[in-house]
Amino acid sequence: MSDLPTTTRELVSTLAPDGEITLAVRDTDLRELGPDDVLVRIGAAPINPSDLGLMFAGADMRTARAGESAVSADVTAGLSSMAGRFGKAMRCGNEGGGTVVATGGSAEAAALDGKVVGFISGDSYAEFRVLHHSQCLAMADGTTPEQAAAWFVNPLTALGMVETMRRDGHTALIHTVGASNLGQMLNRICLADGIPLVNLVRRPEQAELLRGLGAEHVVDSSADTFADDLRDALGATGATVAFDAIGGGTMAGTLLAAMERVAGAGQQYSRYGSDVHKQVYVYGRLDPGPIVLEQRFGLNWSVGGWLLTPFLGSIDPADVQRLRQRVADEITTTFASEYGLRISLDDAVTVDAARRYAAMATGEKALLLPHG
Amino acid sequence: MSDLPTTTRELVSTLAPDGEITLAVRDTDLRELGPDDVLVRIGAAPINPSDLGLMFAGADMRTARAGESAVSADVTAGLSSMAGRFGKAMRCGNEGGGTVVATGGSAEAAALDGKVVGFISGDSYAEFRVLHHSQCLAMADGTTPEQAAAWFVNPLTALGMVETMRRDGHTALIHTVGASNLGQMLNRICLADGIPLVNLVRRPEQAELLRGLGAEHVVDSSADTFADDLRDALGATGATVAFDAIGGGTMAGTLLAAMERVAGAGQQYSRYGSDVHKQVYVYGRLDPGPIVLEQRFGLNWSVGGWLLTPFLGSIDPADVQRLRQRVADEITTTFASEYGLRISLDDAVTVDAARRYAAMATGEKALLLPHG
Repeated sequence: MSDLPTTTRELVSTLAPDGEITLAVRDTDLRELGPDDVLVRIGAAPINPSDLGLMFAGADMRTARAGESAVSADVTAGLSSMAGRFGKAMRCGNEGGGTVVATGGSAEAAALDGKVVGFISGDSYAEFRVLHHSQCLAMADGTTPEQAAAWFVNPLTALGMVETMRRDGHTALIHTVGASNLGQMLNRICLADGIPLVNLVRRPEQAELLRGLGAEHVVDSSADTFADDLRDALGATGATVAFDAIGGGTMAGTLLAAMERVAGAGQQYSRYGSDVHKQVYVYGRLDPGPIVLEQRFGLNWSVGGWLLTPFLGSIDPADVQRLRQRVADEITTTFASEYGLRISLDDAVTVDAARRYAAMATGEKALLLPHG
Repeated sequence: MSDLPTTTRELVSTLAPDGEITLAVRDTDLRELGPDDVLVRIGAAPINPSDLGLMFAGADMRTARAGESAVSADVTAGLSSMAGRFGKAMRCGNEGGGTVVATGGSAEAAALDGKVVGFISGDSYAEFRVLHHSQCLAMADGTTPEQAAAWFVNPLTALGMVETMRRDGHTALIHTVGASNLGQMLNRICLADGIPLVNLVRRPEQAELLRGLGAEHVVDSSADTFADDLRDALGATGATVAFDAIGGGTMAGTLLAAMERVAGAGQQYSRYGSDVHKQVYVYGRLDPGPIVLEQRFGLNWSVGGWLLTPFLGSIDPADVQRLRQRVADEITTTFASEYGLRISLDDAVTVDAARRYAAMATGEKALLLPHG
């Protein structure tokens, strides 16, 4: 075991009370391996929107500037709500893929020895980590760390949306960022499972992309015919629940009003609107501005936050295991991710790369290669 | 039975496609009494905000003008969403109190003979109605029709809020129109049941009124110290659910942000906010403008419509019966209503009275006396 690492390079993000946020590479000690732990050599870790929120806290990336093994930028909005992290160097990266290079003594840990695993940790932007075996999911032989890297956030979010739809009694769903990696994954799940899905996109080429992937209901919000297209898609699918990654703006209210028009078409007039319950779950905040709900959808509605971790905590552990196993079984097909950018830890703290991956453009998703 | 009425005077509201809405008095036939029916001589019926929505559909009452046994006004907003009622004469009045003057042959109907009842019907602004016995709740001897009139909408809404609070796992609640008839009722329920209640009011004299009624937590949104007062009240009570009758504007978001500040104070920083679920139920629309939610409360939140009828349908029938019986038992105490205006059917269609009761000012609630 003498050639095993005892330290690792890692990315940390620190927010100063004056609003300067700094992402830096540093060295840190690895903790000791306990009986239930495994040491993972991290091969790849994706940069998800949910990671960026911690890394740059919504900073204006036009202000990005280089430091020593670091990049800094200015946070101009919502600073007071983040006082809890002032001055703390916060590790980054929700998930990753790697190879187990050492294990503790327990049977569960030892069973992972030499395996390629996907893991969830909140500190995956590093060369190595010591993790509890339950944080890891063993992949089938032949899977690469890069293929395993994005196993948790997007796959379980997409599966969680479908589970939530069923739990709440809906039979079809809307997704507001249809062309995203997550959206493409959700499209594959819904095609495989026969679930009607309305894919919202914001550009014609995104609509083309999704149609090319077999999507039946694609609605382009930039089209002049958006309102009619949306109503037609909701009429055809009966979707009464939407998952929205945008948050700010009027989209949630637009969706509720469109659902209500479809639901109310066959019903007697009531001042309270139709008796169909309409739901929008906000699971991301690409637009951090206010959510504006024009009240044109009766009183049978709900808009609320949706988070993966509490959702997984709310369902039966056996169901969680079923969802995880489906991800492992289909990691190179249904749950495959694509990247537009591959960067090292050192690249991640350059101004050019940070601006690019922080823009979160479709097709520009970044994969961090800590040993790259 | 020969002296029983076969017709009744009633109020109906008709919305023309051009936006003119007309409230008129007219004569109509009573339907035949079936075995399970009772004939009620209506003594009194309250005009609730929920009734006004049907009567005037948010019309601008400055445009009110007299017609023949009618008053008309112009609806300027949201007309297209009401196309379902264009040209239809819609009966008005959710609830009322009266005396059963004839009954059908069934035992349940006959049991109500001669009784003073509260009833729910959607057409209570009339002299007489034929109702199914289940629409009625028999009051204790000595109760007057006026005391029984407002037995359903406010009492069951107030009780429903408390039941919903418990069902959702909260232990204290916020009410945004604390000084309203409903608010005073909720205050009495919470005092009796030992439930911490934060009463929001919009004027100092409303705060005085509620404190005089024993309310412990009263927060005046017009005070300079509003933000601090609200945080203190939420801290003292632990309220994480609010019932809001206003709808439009920023109040729902303000409440969520204040709950989040209190909830997050003792927790480690997370970009997703605290793990405390925060809920606002919108049960009225005194402000029909957009609901604007500044996203300053993490992702553990929900805002949604709350309606009494679906709520009652969602709970056990035995629980509905328990709530109804409590109302009957406490109709002259906990569930007593006060009125600032008593009007006849003919008064209701005058410009002066319509403007006054449509303003829904605190202390100005109207009681309709169909035989007055």
